[in-house]
Amino acid sequence: MKAVRLHAYHRRPVVEEVPEPRATGPFDVVVKIGGAGVCRTDLHIIEEQWAEKSGVTLPYTIGHENAGWVHEVGSAVSSVEVGDTVILHPTPTCGLCRACRAGDDMHCSDGTFPGITTDGGMAEYLLTSARACIKLDPETRPEDVAALADAGITAYHAVRKAVPLLPPGTVCVVNGAGGLGHIGIQSLRALTATTVVVIDRNPEALDLAAMLGADHTVLADGKHVEAVLDLTGGDGAEVVLDFVAEQGAQQDTFAMTRRAGSQFVIGYGGKLEIPAIDLISTERNVIGNLVGTYNDLAELMVLAQTGRVTLHTRKYPLDAALDALADLGHGRVRGRAILTP
Amino acid sequence: MKAVRLHAYHRRPVVEEVPEPRATGPFDVVVKIGGAGVCRTDLHIIEEQWAEKSGVTLPYTIGHENAGWVHEVGSAVSSVEVGDTVILHPTPTCGLCRACRAGDDMHCSDGTFPGITTDGGMAEYLLTSARACIKLDPETRPEDVAALADAGITAYHAVRKAVPLLPPGTVCVVNGAGGLGHIGIQSLRALTATTVVVIDRNPEALDLAAMLGADHTVLADGKHVEAVLDLTGGDGAEVVLDFVAEQGAQQDTFAMTRRAGSQFVIGYGGKLEIPAIDLISTERNVIGNLVGTYNDLAELMVLAQTGRVTLHTRKYPLDAALDALADLGHGRVRGRAILTP
Amino acid sequence: MKAVRLHAYHRRPVVEEVPEPRATGPFDVVVKIGGAGVCRTDLHIIEEQWAEKSGVTLPYTIGHENAGWVHEVGSAVSSVEVGDTVILHPTPTCGLCRACRAGDDMHCSDGTFPGITTDGGMAEYLLTSARACIKLDPETRPEDVAALADAGITAYHAVRKAVPLLPPGTVCVVNGAGGLGHIGIQSLRALTATTVVVIDRNPEALDLAAMLGADHTVLADGKHVEAVLDLTGGDGAEVVLDFVAEQGAQQDTFAMTRRAGSQFVIGYGGKLEIPAIDLISTERNVIGNLVGTYNDLAELMVLAQTGRVTLHTRKYPLDAALDALADLGHGRVRGRAILTP
Amino acid sequence: MKAVRLHAYHRRPVVEEVPEPRATGPFDVVVKIGGAGVCRTDLHIIEEQWAEKSGVTLPYTIGHENAGWVHEVGSAVSSVEVGDTVILHPTPTCGLCRACRAGDDMHCSDGTFPGITTDGGMAEYLLTSARACIKLDPETRPEDVAALADAGITAYHAVRKAVPLLPPGTVCVVNGAGGLGHIGIQSLRALTATTVVVIDRNPEALDLAAMLGADHTVLADGKHVEAVLDLTGGDGAEVVLDFVAEQGAQQDTFAMTRRAGSQFVIGYGGKLEIPAIDLISTERNVIGNLVGTYNDLAELMVLAQTGRVTLHTRKYPLDAALDALADLGHGRVRGRAILTP
Repeated sequence: MKAVRLHAYHRRPVVEEVPEPRATGPFDVVVKIGGAGVCRTDLHIIEEQWAEKSGVTLPYTIGHENAGWVHEVGSAVSSVEVGDTVILHPTPTCGLCRACRAGDDMHCSDGTFPGITTDGGMAEYLLTSARACIKLDPETRPEDVAALADAGITAYHAVRKAVPLLPPGTVCVVNGAGGLGHIGIQSLRALTATTVVVIDRNPEALDLAAMLGADHTVLADGKHVEAVLDLTGGDGAEVVLDFVAEQGAQQDTFAMTRRAGSQFVIGYGGKLEIPAIDLISTERNVIGNLVGTYNDLAELMVLAQTGRVTLHTRKYPLDAALDALADLGHGRVRGRAILTP
Repeated sequence: MKAVRLHAYHRRPVVEEVPEPRATGPFDVVVKIGGAGVCRTDLHIIEEQWAEKSGVTLPYTIGHENAGWVHEVGSAVSSVEVGDTVILHPTPTCGLCRACRAGDDMHCSDGTFPGITTDGGMAEYLLTSARACIKLDPETRPEDVAALADAGITAYHAVRKAVPLLPPGTVCVVNGAGGLGHIGIQSLRALTATTVVVIDRNPEALDLAAMLGADHTVLADGKHVEAVLDLTGGDGAEVVLDFVAEQGAQQDTFAMTRRAGSQFVIGYGGKLEIPAIDLISTERNVIGNLVGTYNDLAELMVLAQTGRVTLHTRKYPLDAALDALADLGHGRVRGRAILTP
Repeated sequence: MKAVRLHAYHRRPVVEEVPEPRATGPFDVVVKIGGAGVCRTDLHIIEEQWAEKSGVTLPYTIGHENAGWVHEVGSAVSSVEVGDTVILHPTPTCGLCRACRAGDDMHCSDGTFPGITTDGGMAEYLLTSARACIKLDPETRPEDVAALADAGITAYHAVRKAVPLLPPGTVCVVNGAGGLGHIGIQSLRALTATTVVVIDRNPEALDLAAMLGADHTVLADGKHVEAVLDLTGGDGAEVVLDFVAEQGAQQDTFAMTRRAGSQFVIGYGGKLEIPAIDLISTERNVIGNLVGTYNDLAELMVLAQTGRVTLHTRKYPLDAALDALADLGHGRVRGRAILTP
Repeated sequence: MKAVRLHAYHRRPVVEEVPEPRATGPFDVVVKIGGAGVCRTDLHIIEEQWAEKSGVTLPYTIGHENAGWVHEVGSAVSSVEVGDTVILHPTPTCGLCRACRAGDDMHCSDGTFPGITTDGGMAEYLLTSARACIKLDPETRPEDVAALADAGITAYHAVRKAVPLLPPGTVCVVNGAGGLGHIGIQSLRALTATTVVVIDRNPEALDLAAMLGADHTVLADGKHVEAVLDLTGGDGAEVVLDFVAEQGAQQDTFAMTRRAGSQFVIGYGGKLEIPAIDLISTERNVIGNLVGTYNDLAELMVLAQTGRVTLHTRKYPLDAALDALADLGHGRVRGRAILTP
């Protein structure tokens, strides 16, 4: 089959032929890929940012945002069958460790992360497990929902954690209205009545944000922190969801958060520098966020299937994977780039 | 009356005569001070660290950790009466703002903080309000419990927030076993069955920690991060309560915190520097902490009165306030220094 | 001034002249009533159902759902001033007990409940306290929002408690779409993406429910329990909000609740009869609900002022109070009856 | 192998030879039983109370509280190996349904309950799954801990749910200090600083309760409700854990619960009868409880292995199972009866 393989860091991946994966373990599932999202993390992988943390051996197939159809199942799989339309939670987990037993899929002590720590889904077929499969309505087109498998779940997970902090009368700032942010805005609209303020440096992204339900939009023009403080009577926001967290956005985010408020870090690339006295004198929190749970993704699929969350995507054939990566790297993608068979 | 007054930053306060305060407002309460704690924050105030945040005008009376007897009450006060023994929550609050209506006393939009933003309790009498008074058993000696009014409540509040993260099988590290830390250890012992690991650079403080119920003690000798990782199978602790947060302790604290774990910042002085990728790839949290609520202090008094929390104090007469401040500054106080009438 | 006074149980109240109340305590507030809601509880009071629990002495003025304009304030009131438009939380509380200090206004150990335990608001003026006043936009007409002060806050409070149980993919049944229920439906729509199923025996009420965002409506025709089970694949709903709780509705509610689900009791009049084995073998909960907190009402006003919650009311002049009570008793009121000056 | 088999309701089970179970599925585990607890539910099963709910076909082997050593494992089991000492969560669950994915083991949509819905552990060997096994220190004697597998986890689970309601200054009543209750008392002592009041009709049980840390003991002599109200200043307790819930205990429990308090139903046999007005006018809750999660049992094993929870047991050889059942039925067992190989 064809697959998008990384052979060396700081070099472009290659679309090449590799053997198809097989379901050899009792809970293995092989999925025929119908849609594979292209993510900024793919660029970061190529740039070697994840090399030490992932410990992956090159070459391997990238792609960690996948949906498709079940192609082959292991001997003990009964939850899905060949032909089912599925979206895949990014981490096939062990199901037995303490974290798994509490539903904290991302903290499984024995999980894998296809596309990051092992072969991923920018290919014709992907090996995953029954525990990663969420069965969908057979009419769903995988390419239409694949972006929910990583961008979507990540934005939704952060919003879900923030909901208890966002009763009516509060303000939530969404810093960055790109692939994740535009799902975050819709998730906030579906689950809260908080006032949503969206910041982006791209006016088009702000137009989309307003259409998706943002109460206020603010251009990231260097005066945006002041603008948010003005909108909140000088206090700042109860929650700031930082989908950027690089190039100073992480510091702006802290500056826009009010007393007893919380800065949610979702993007990455930058470094937080916060004097302890500033944290304690106002009792603020900095909350890390990492993808989401299987149930988060299942809930998000409900929002998608009831029309509360819609995706903006641009499709590329698998053969054009390098074009998609280049377009993303040069800021030429609105919404999410998706590879299709 | 006599009072310990700060006339200029970076200079020693002066014990001098000032007029006694009077209860002129309907909810005012004047308390005859029986015990006033001496806190590292008093040193920081003198060093001008709080000048900008507090906005206080010099000269003024310091002392923000107080207990005593009700001396005079305003016309509408019915919750305490003259002669009652009381411990004082540090912030007389408005009782009407949204934060007060949710019990978040420290985030009152119209509160004062005697000893920081206005005249405090290193004096014969202190002006506070009915909302700050917790009535005690008349046999309680204020000098024995005063240290709970700020050091105690601050440690207890952080522990109280951490309890849901600390079921049996988890590990909680207490970084710093001084005035606050030794109350933190006892609060953890009273409210959880977590494994308590205590770090300090003072072997005597570690002996006290072991006596108070620490499961493991670790000398802060430069290899303490490694020691904690060893104790936790390489994973780190679910919660690290950082009572130091300066001179690198804040970075050590992060390094000792496990995946999905939380670093509680309680001390201050240092600066946190954390790459966003480290926060998100492990989904860790940094939690600010500021004193505590009125109900926190009421709960802590229950722990004290049932013997679950005991204090180690050293008493000085009010006239010797400068000795107490000097002893604290030079590390010559074990437990908490308390000024008595 | 004119007031609606109850002189004897099981007899009709009388509209008569009584002296105006005065603000004598420092935190007293006298409000000129602009809207006073008429509630089924007023009928229950007349029927002597609350006599023992309230301990009130007859005669007294009924009316516990009030909004208006500040007319006179006590010496220490600074949060509102004469002329301000206000809606009133039903219970002026002490602000000092442990419940008040946690924001649990309804469990104040020293509160009053005007209209139930003391003179209420079916009158020209009402005596309350600064703690009960929520200041509104001066353009708000009190008669338009008064129904939020008791019916609204009660429905909202129950929904607010249920929100954590209602992520996407769950089902919430609203049993009864009358005065409270129609606010409950809108609150659910504002704060969750749960599937809302509404039951009522009145087809018009169901039409209104559908208009307000119910996903499914079910006529209470004796087959409604079965209908809800059918809608939920035989499982029942995660939450059933029972705004009726009499004439068997309370038993139906339990029967419609799924494993690990919760029955919220909001209405009253009936008796719950549940074998313990049915509770434990499915681990279900029965949750009592009583009005709501000051902050609940403040949040609900945000929903109202942003158009997320709208009220259906019918206005009567104060002189026609007995007509309003009679219309309510005979099922002739759609939405809420409101007395106006 | 030998097994205790029920052939007909209302008749005594029979100890007889049956074939040994085999691990045929990939996640199957066969455990050699080292200790099997005898529970009041076994008597209720014989009395046909569970026949309809369990849907089990007679004859079958009872026994739902088990510990032992792994004897045989399925092809995909890697979490335990032959020879490991294990305690068994009572329900081998699917691991794939929404409840399992949230850690709510008892609400698995596809679980079994050996000893209730299928062959249990009063036998030489038991068939369970890898998901039910908690590996123990090899020195642990299964007969010493088996009672934690059902009695223990059930008591612990209820306490764990109650902990957030029980800060210092609150009161928790334990109604019934038998097999479950005495673990409940110890769990409360380990996880809270609440005041623990224990009620039982057996003075010896109360002596044991006092030894285990109860602050007050009350003889169930008909005046016990009044006694609890006296101990709580007339208010009642924040939480009452009802381990009896029959013969009127369930009504007493409600009567001992304070405003905003919660009645936890753990025992069964009786019927709750509560007027809705009593629930809503005080905003009380009735909370069902069913066994506990895998992680609950893992946490409880930590409490047991650190000596915070100790068990009182009486051992019988498997052949004497009928004696054990008879002794339990006649109130002749203190603590828990355990069958040993």
